[in-house]
Amino acid sequence: MLLLRKPYLLFLGDVRSAVHAKTAFGVAHWCPDDVVGELRFDGAAVSTGKPALSIAQAAAAGAGSLLIGIAPVGGQLPPHWLPTLIEAAQAGLDIVSGLHTRLGSFPELVAAAAAARVQLHDVRHGDWPRVTGSGRKRPGKRVLTVGTDCALGKKYTALALTRSLQARGMPATFRATGQTGIMISGAGVAIDAVVADFIAGVAEQLSPDNAGSHWDVIEGQGSLFHPAYAGVSLGLLHGSQPDALVLCHDPGRQHIDGLPDFPMPALAEAIALYLQAGRLTNPDVRCIGISVNSSSLSEAAWSAYQERLEAELGLPVADPLRGGVETLTTALINQEETCHES
Amino acid sequence: MLLLRKPYLLFLGDVRSAVHAKTAFGVAHWCPDDVVGELRFDGAAVSTGKPALSIAQAAAAGAGSLLIGIAPVGGQLPPHWLPTLIEAAQAGLDIVSGLHTRLGSFPELVAAAAAARVQLHDVRHGDWPRVTGSGRKRPGKRVLTVGTDCALGKKYTALALTRSLQARGMPATFRATGQTGIMISGAGVAIDAVVADFIAGVAEQLSPDNAGSHWDVIEGQGSLFHPAYAGVSLGLLHGSQPDALVLCHDPGRQHIDGLPDFPMPALAEAIALYLQAGRLTNPDVRCIGISVNSSSLSEAAWSAYQERLEAELGLPVADPLRGGVETLTTALINQEETCHES
Repeated sequence: MLLLRKPYLLFLGDVRSAVHAKTAFGVAHWCPDDVVGELRFDGAAVSTGKPALSIAQAAAAGAGSLLIGIAPVGGQLPPHWLPTLIEAAQAGLDIVSGLHTRLGSFPELVAAAAAARVQLHDVRHGDWPRVTGSGRKRPGKRVLTVGTDCALGKKYTALALTRSLQARGMPATFRATGQTGIMISGAGVAIDAVVADFIAGVAEQLSPDNAGSHWDVIEGQGSLFHPAYAGVSLGLLHGSQPDALVLCHDPGRQHIDGLPDFPMPALAEAIALYLQAGRLTNPDVRCIGISVNSSSLSEAAWSAYQERLEAELGLPVADPLRGGVETLTTALINQEETCHES
Repeated sequence: MLLLRKPYLLFLGDVRSAVHAKTAFGVAHWCPDDVVGELRFDGAAVSTGKPALSIAQAAAAGAGSLLIGIAPVGGQLPPHWLPTLIEAAQAGLDIVSGLHTRLGSFPELVAAAAAARVQLHDVRHGDWPRVTGSGRKRPGKRVLTVGTDCALGKKYTALALTRSLQARGMPATFRATGQTGIMISGAGVAIDAVVADFIAGVAEQLSPDNAGSHWDVIEGQGSLFHPAYAGVSLGLLHGSQPDALVLCHDPGRQHIDGLPDFPMPALAEAIALYLQAGRLTNPDVRCIGISVNSSSLSEAAWSAYQERLEAELGLPVADPLRGGVETLTTALINQEETCHES
């Protein structure tokens, strides 16, 4: 499994807007203790609030990796970043990138990394063993976040659930399946970069055998309702063998993101489809609650929506950013909830 | 799209059994006119019945490619084959391989191919544009073969349907998604070798916009009931946007191949699940019939089984090897069949 060396120096370069620095902000938010500081070029427009450090200062402070925390337009690595990355490698830092461009495609950087014996990690391009799924039931408990669409809170919900379980003294591990999640947890697999034949097999390895009381909290990807990504979502679901699902939803979304011809599914329909698909590898799978990104709703509208939905589905409905996920955690632990199947 | 240069010289090497020469036999069976001959080492145990040719003879006969028609144990390329492959490249033949080992990993072969300006095709490792699915409805008609499990006749059924449509004067194209299918048709994509993010997008490209009366007959892969491969099957289904499905089944199979804990689904259940999933990108998808691999049944048992199933499902039931697929072709053309949805 991909393992990253923390703590991080967050590289912000000459970033122009917070939107492009989503990765840096995500890492600074979820694992602030794993960040020694940030490195910005003159004229960078945003900051994570972490101390500004030179590479030498970061190395002296014990940084394990320089983490490219920004996404340039087009996903390519701008050439003028290269001297900084080479300097970091020479100072003994691993380089962690989520860009499309592979770090290994820059010979000077490769040479510097080899000389300094540091690693170049392309988080987007996993290098996993090529094994197909076995369907074998694994010990340990697993919860997977699934969604009515992409990009509506599956990672955030999984991280919040992990923290909440741990705060209650339960053994729990966040299992990252996307690049920001991997950078936050320091381990994981970019499941959508895996060769199709091995999606379920790699998902099986991501949450291996564990103690019976241990919860793997697995970050979901894509959506069974997305015409481009449903295959990834299904393979991840089958390989994860979840005991519990949390369905993530954004009531402000009018249709599948970017695809006006594809309507958002009804929540009961989504729950039913995920459970039906999940039963192939875990006949006992249940949906234990709904996680809502309610940012499009006023406080009053959110309260009304939450109340209506809880009555309708018979499940706890939470927004991690508005009241937290404690009702979901309780439902997960109790597991006595019955699941609404449409 | 991967395009192969026909006709082929079938390379059989020192093959020991017909099972290992499945690819060569498939190609010789489905496109005999595209085969100039076969190349066997002394002591080879089987033959496709095609004339034995040296490389020089094959080149003189106009061969476009040497096709490795056998699967050595372990899927690796035995080193003692290499001189023959180099000789073929030097004689102006492309090399077509479905092995795990990439032809490009042999520097001498790469050099010979470059010098002779011939191509090395690793059919198993596609090199497709990285595009995600759009879900956009495409003109032209499409039929996809799907299965209750892997390896029970999806390729054979698709090829037989294509021939049958063409014999009736209908414009039809076989669309290959696996290596033997690609070698037979000379084009296609190994869909299970595509990066997960792009399964549906690549499937969309495989059957592009076409005339309204044209049928793309798409070779299915895997099964929605297989815990390792369902993600591939779903992405292919969504990207193919089929108007019609043919469900392939083997009544002799007791459980999903190699996985005793996973029972074979009931046919009505399988039809319902494929239609439900297919509706995401084509709300009008129908199941027009069942293709059975009845090799485990006596003639009498097959007749009884076929009759019972047709009554039960209200659909034509055919075995391409026992009576052919004409009833399926008729159903496809008529499209007035109503579909049994459980």
